[in-house]
Amino acid sequence: MRFLLSIIFVQILYIITCCVATAEDGYDLWLRYNKITDQQLLEHYKSAVHRIELKGSGPAVQIVKEELENGMKGLLGQIVPVNVSSGSSKNDTLQNGTIVFAIIDENGIPFSDNLGGGFPEIREKSAKLKDEGFLMKSIEIQGNNILLIFAKSEAGILYSAFHFLKLIQTHQNITDLSVLENPKTDYRLLNHWDNPDRTVERGYAGFSIWEWHKLPGYVSPRYKDYARANASVGINGTVLTNVNANARVLTPQYLGKIAAIADVLRPYAIKVYLTARFSAPVELGGLKTADPLNKEVRNWWKTKIDEIYKYVPDFGGFLVKANSEGQPGPQNYERSHAEGANMLAEALDNHGGIVMWRAFVYSFDENEDRAKQAYNEFKPLDGKFRDNVMVQVKNGPIDFQPREPFHPLFGAMPKTPLMMEFQITQEYLGFATHLVYLASMWKECLESDTYAKGEGSTVATVIDGSLYNKNISGMAGVSNIGADRNWTGHPFAQSNWYALGRLAWDHTLTEAEIADEWLRMTFSNNKDFIAPVKEIMLFSREASVNYMTPLGLHHIMGEGHHYGPGPWVDQAAREDWTSVYYHRADENGIGFDRTKTGSNAVSQYYKPVEEKFGDPGSCPEKFLLWFHHPDWDYTMNSGRTLWEELCHKYYKGVSMVRDMQEKWNAAEGLIDRERFVHVKSLLAIQLEEAEMWRNACLLYFQQFSGRPIPKQYEKPSGSLEFYKKLDFRYAPGNLHCE
Amino acid sequence: MRFLLSIIFVQILYIITCCVATAEDGYDLWLRYNKITDQQLLEHYKSAVHRIELKGSGPAVQIVKEELENGMKGLLGQIVPVNVSSGSSKNDTLQNGTIVFAIIDENGIPFSDNLGGGFPEIREKSAKLKDEGFLMKSIEIQGNNILLIFAKSEAGILYSAFHFLKLIQTHQNITDLSVLENPKTDYRLLNHWDNPDRTVERGYAGFSIWEWHKLPGYVSPRYKDYARANASVGINGTVLTNVNANARVLTPQYLGKIAAIADVLRPYAIKVYLTARFSAPVELGGLKTADPLNKEVRNWWKTKIDEIYKYVPDFGGFLVKANSEGQPGPQNYERSHAEGANMLAEALDNHGGIVMWRAFVYSFDENEDRAKQAYNEFKPLDGKFRDNVMVQVKNGPIDFQPREPFHPLFGAMPKTPLMMEFQITQEYLGFATHLVYLASMWKECLESDTYAKGEGSTVATVIDGSLYNKNISGMAGVSNIGADRNWTGHPFAQSNWYALGRLAWDHTLTEAEIADEWLRMTFSNNKDFIAPVKEIMLFSREASVNYMTPLGLHHIMGEGHHYGPGPWVDQAAREDWTSVYYHRADENGIGFDRTKTGSNAVSQYYKPVEEKFGDPGSCPEKFLLWFHHPDWDYTMNSGRTLWEELCHKYYKGVSMVRDMQEKWNAAEGLIDRERFVHVKSLLAIQLEEAEMWRNACLLYFQQFSGRPIPKQYEKPSGSLEFYKKLDFRYAPGNLHCE
Repeated sequence: MRFLLSIIFVQILYIITCCVATAEDGYDLWLRYNKITDQQLLEHYKSAVHRIELKGSGPAVQIVKEELENGMKGLLGQIVPVNVSSGSSKNDTLQNGTIVFAIIDENGIPFSDNLGGGFPEIREKSAKLKDEGFLMKSIEIQGNNILLIFAKSEAGILYSAFHFLKLIQTHQNITDLSVLENPKTDYRLLNHWDNPDRTVERGYAGFSIWEWHKLPGYVSPRYKDYARANASVGINGTVLTNVNANARVLTPQYLGKIAAIADVLRPYAIKVYLTARFSAPVELGGLKTADPLNKEVRNWWKTKIDEIYKYVPDFGGFLVKANSEGQPGPQNYERSHAEGANMLAEALDNHGGIVMWRAFVYSFDENEDRAKQAYNEFKPLDGKFRDNVMVQVKNGPIDFQPREPFHPLFGAMPKTPLMMEFQITQEYLGFATHLVYLASMWKECLESDTYAKGEGSTVATVIDGSLYNKNISGMAGVSNIGADRNWTGHPFAQSNWYALGRLAWDHTLTEAEIADEWLRMTFSNNKDFIAPVKEIMLFSREASVNYMTPLGLHHIMGEGHHYGPGPWVDQAAREDWTSVYYHRADENGIGFDRTKTGSNAVSQYYKPVEEKFGDPGSCPEKFLLWFHHPDWDYTMNSGRTLWEELCHKYYKGVSMVRDMQEKWNAAEGLIDRERFVHVKSLLAIQLEEAEMWRNACLLYFQQFSGRPIPKQYEKPSGSLEFYKKLDFRYAPGNLHCE
Repeated sequence: MRFLLSIIFVQILYIITCCVATAEDGYDLWLRYNKITDQQLLEHYKSAVHRIELKGSGPAVQIVKEELENGMKGLLGQIVPVNVSSGSSKNDTLQNGTIVFAIIDENGIPFSDNLGGGFPEIREKSAKLKDEGFLMKSIEIQGNNILLIFAKSEAGILYSAFHFLKLIQTHQNITDLSVLENPKTDYRLLNHWDNPDRTVERGYAGFSIWEWHKLPGYVSPRYKDYARANASVGINGTVLTNVNANARVLTPQYLGKIAAIADVLRPYAIKVYLTARFSAPVELGGLKTADPLNKEVRNWWKTKIDEIYKYVPDFGGFLVKANSEGQPGPQNYERSHAEGANMLAEALDNHGGIVMWRAFVYSFDENEDRAKQAYNEFKPLDGKFRDNVMVQVKNGPIDFQPREPFHPLFGAMPKTPLMMEFQITQEYLGFATHLVYLASMWKECLESDTYAKGEGSTVATVIDGSLYNKNISGMAGVSNIGADRNWTGHPFAQSNWYALGRLAWDHTLTEAEIADEWLRMTFSNNKDFIAPVKEIMLFSREASVNYMTPLGLHHIMGEGHHYGPGPWVDQAAREDWTSVYYHRADENGIGFDRTKTGSNAVSQYYKPVEEKFGDPGSCPEKFLLWFHHPDWDYTMNSGRTLWEELCHKYYKGVSMVRDMQEKWNAAEGLIDRERFVHVKSLLAIQLEEAEMWRNACLLYFQQFSGRPIPKQYEKPSGSLEFYKKLDFRYAPGNLHCE
């Protein structure tokens, strides 16, 4: 007995010594394989997973083996042998509790009957398998329960493995499965706005994770962790460099560095993309022009692209920001965006690369409503782009505001595949200090009906290519990843990275489903934790809209760094960079008239939408001030006047943050101390800043409304002058060098 | 038996589940309490440490308790109770194996006889105790072996606890101790060149760890880890901000942030200091002048300083860079450095603060040898500074070059306490990619004999105040800490942070002793690892001198970013920012004549030194080209010509790096894989860059020497043109915004 106790003692020591000082820092994201504490559940999974057969070969297969072994070791606390073999053997004898992962070919299942060959449902499902998809089917053979997981590619098997692990991480059933998963979009990308000096434009989680200076000599282990996290949510490409592009990334010096990163990402089925600076032929090639129709220019790009493929054989292609915000482009040479894009696309086509050409353009000279310009420029180009070009369109017509109506280009270019550009990094949504779950915003956009082909022509159907049967489709998210230990600064900003990947894979998932699985994997399966915290996530975006830009207000933030409120901003390099240009507040009312009597931006939408948005009566109040300029006394659905409603919304936003705090405080003890405290401190900052937004904006607009803030509300603590004087010169994401 | 096995199995599971995925990333620095694997040793320590009595109170005492409990849990794998009580009880009954930590008062030992009162040696030693010191004495009472550890302050107890833990970490004897430790310098500081935008001037380990934007709302747990690491090596102060100062850090907005950091550092006996921008009264106060003799200006500073102490009651004081490299200062108003420093010092004196006034000055107009200017300006001011001012002098007269002779100011200002400024960050020593152990360089400087009061007047005796019995003394290191996970970028750069602290505490320690204890704590006590790797460290600095700037060459690096070789740099904002200004290579020879026939900088040293340096015959060859301009055919001690010797040194430097690689490769398997691979990749980069330095410099100087590179050496792989064309615009530490 004493001997026994001593063993238990030693055991405890191991735990102590080996776990001492490993504080929870969020680095592991949602990829946590902590042992299941519910004994019953644990036993269930143990009996369901006795051994794993992994049939296939290639680098990804090795990764799957690793991942599954670690996963089982962690989750079940026992070693489950993963037996790798290529193809099938005629007599696979399968014990009870065997999981079979297998790469199959186009013809379906090359396996013996007892590997599912005898199951018509499997044959039928496997016929529907797309290249990156996978299917899972629980079967019973001779009384043995077996789970078959089939895919057509290494990527598919990789995704299926993470899916399988997720089922256990989130305590789902794995014994009665019948799953067919195919990605809804082909190109699921992150866009890094990372510069060669390691600053990140609109990055709020520290320096860039790309240590350019040390590459290729030193390859940070973090690149592999990055690849793994992305693969686990189905992201299959990443643009390494900023859209405000630097030609140097195309020099051999940098291509060597890029190749080193690509080598780490490749086994995780992630391709590397770059941003192409349109003037590179001049800057690097010493040519006199970058005219896309110029022979030398075309040759320069062809040669350069061939060179890139020598470094990165599976290079994905280019993301291009041209003739926008000072970036060079084809228009400098009186050529169209299509002519510019096609030049690159042609040279890339030889290698299977693509061009993602951004529609985010607004010209310097034109003083047309900025919201209209992208449509005006690109609609006429429909049909003029090569097949391997996608036009990448932001969710809304301005610029990633807390709330915008969907972009009028969606549905307006039937002959052109449009790629969605969401912004994961919270440039206008509280940086890395506000808890704002963005899936709600993205779903709102994806489910918006364009009526392009009548009712049901949602933005999602444009993006996934189904509306106009496009053969390529894609969704991109502007990354919020930085060198901060927890990757994204705010622990909950991880959920936005996660959600982007999940929605790119399947836009039919609800924001609640995504929040639920993310919370379970990232924090805990404890329902006392999940329920209230999921609520926080689901109303967090509406809260931010309320305390920042309610009722369709937009672009009223601080200038340059975009931090904090700045409705008073009336001086900038261009009129449409000011706030007054957008809110147009005066003694009569507030809002941007975009109807016939104004800029008539509504006319860019299909009739039913135009009519709905065009009439203040039918226009959803959340977009009222986006499209209209009502009087301060305009009566809202609530019966309140516009001014009262504005006050109501701003105060509501702040009280919602207080609600977030209460709910979060109740979670104390249900998760690790470190992340609990981290989020708690950030929520305190969020409350402070929400109050700053509310007070600054209401005091500012009050100058025009001339009406009092209803007395049921607490008085703003500071004066308007106080808020105007606040100086946030060193706010991150907008590095200002002395 | 099966039951037993199952327990062992469970045990193994715990290890697996709890240790899975915790890869070694270097974050723990030298503070590792991994269980001792040598069973005999383990038993020895276990028997020596049964319980710990901790007598005293205060925040530091709580930290000591934590630290000792974690330490024992980790190192011995068993819980050793730490019993905290204030003062002593008359009848302390001490069992065998008790460790007593006690804070005692000036009068010595308030404890009962069995707490050492009866031991004259202890009474005697404790009388010698300085405020931050500690003593350790093993005694035997009634057959019980007891270790008494006494200190006069919380700081002293804190230092003694880390010392005690270090003895066990490094496998030293703890049963027969008789130790008296007092710090040799009073102010042991880090200087952070960190900017409010989180960039770090000359920082090579990522962003600043100070997350200004989120402070004070979010206080990163990293600040505590930072404080703990510094306290463990006796550092008792830190200057948070860059010497190229930004006045905004003195605004209430930032003082609130600074207070939050100070609150975390305080329990670790670390004071916060700031850099004072001399023109702040104009920039913040709206005054017309910053003239230090102007009444309003003096009042402004007094009020500002009183305000600072409201935020940080134990604020340490100011570090000031004035009238240097564009920084404003008293000379803008025809006032002396002393008048500027004294103004601040007077206001700080009321609160016990100090001023550290940098001697790193060289004027724009003067075209005097830059090496002479600090001396010329400051020597005449000796005796003019207030008592709470220290003049902070860099180790050499130029600027942290791989090798410089000691600064002539050392010993030249008998009436002024001189503080040493070393540079931990490797601005001129390979950034965070070269393994260069700097203790060798610092010891070389500290042990240099100034002959100020005859032989034995070493720089160390100036710095510790003993030569001229100063009542304050100090040593500062320009920090190499950044947001990189392992703090310093290069795993071995941690040793330089460590060494700075150790030398500030006790400059008589040898570089080998410091390397030995750092290696044991940071990596392993395995002598097969220690011996060769210690060798690497000890010759690493000489290697870097050889492949960068042998024989007294200096300041021939790339312009601006200071990365890589740039002997050809002949254009810069000022002549003494070029390389040609320093190496002066021509057909006749190479080197800067600083004798009578030249700038006569040698005359700034005391006679014996002047004579030694002044004559090429007696001048150490390592300084030859610093002080002389010999012919290319000048005969060196080796019998080689100067040109041949130059080639020899450069090639030697590269071969030394190869030697480092061989020795390191032999360490594979003796330490964790992660850090082994990390260092291995960085050594490969170091070799590449060493070859780049060698080839670029020799090919460049060969233009003047007109002599061949002796054929026993491999030919440079690139041409001079090739090396001149290399462009490292985005080299870190010199952030260049677009």
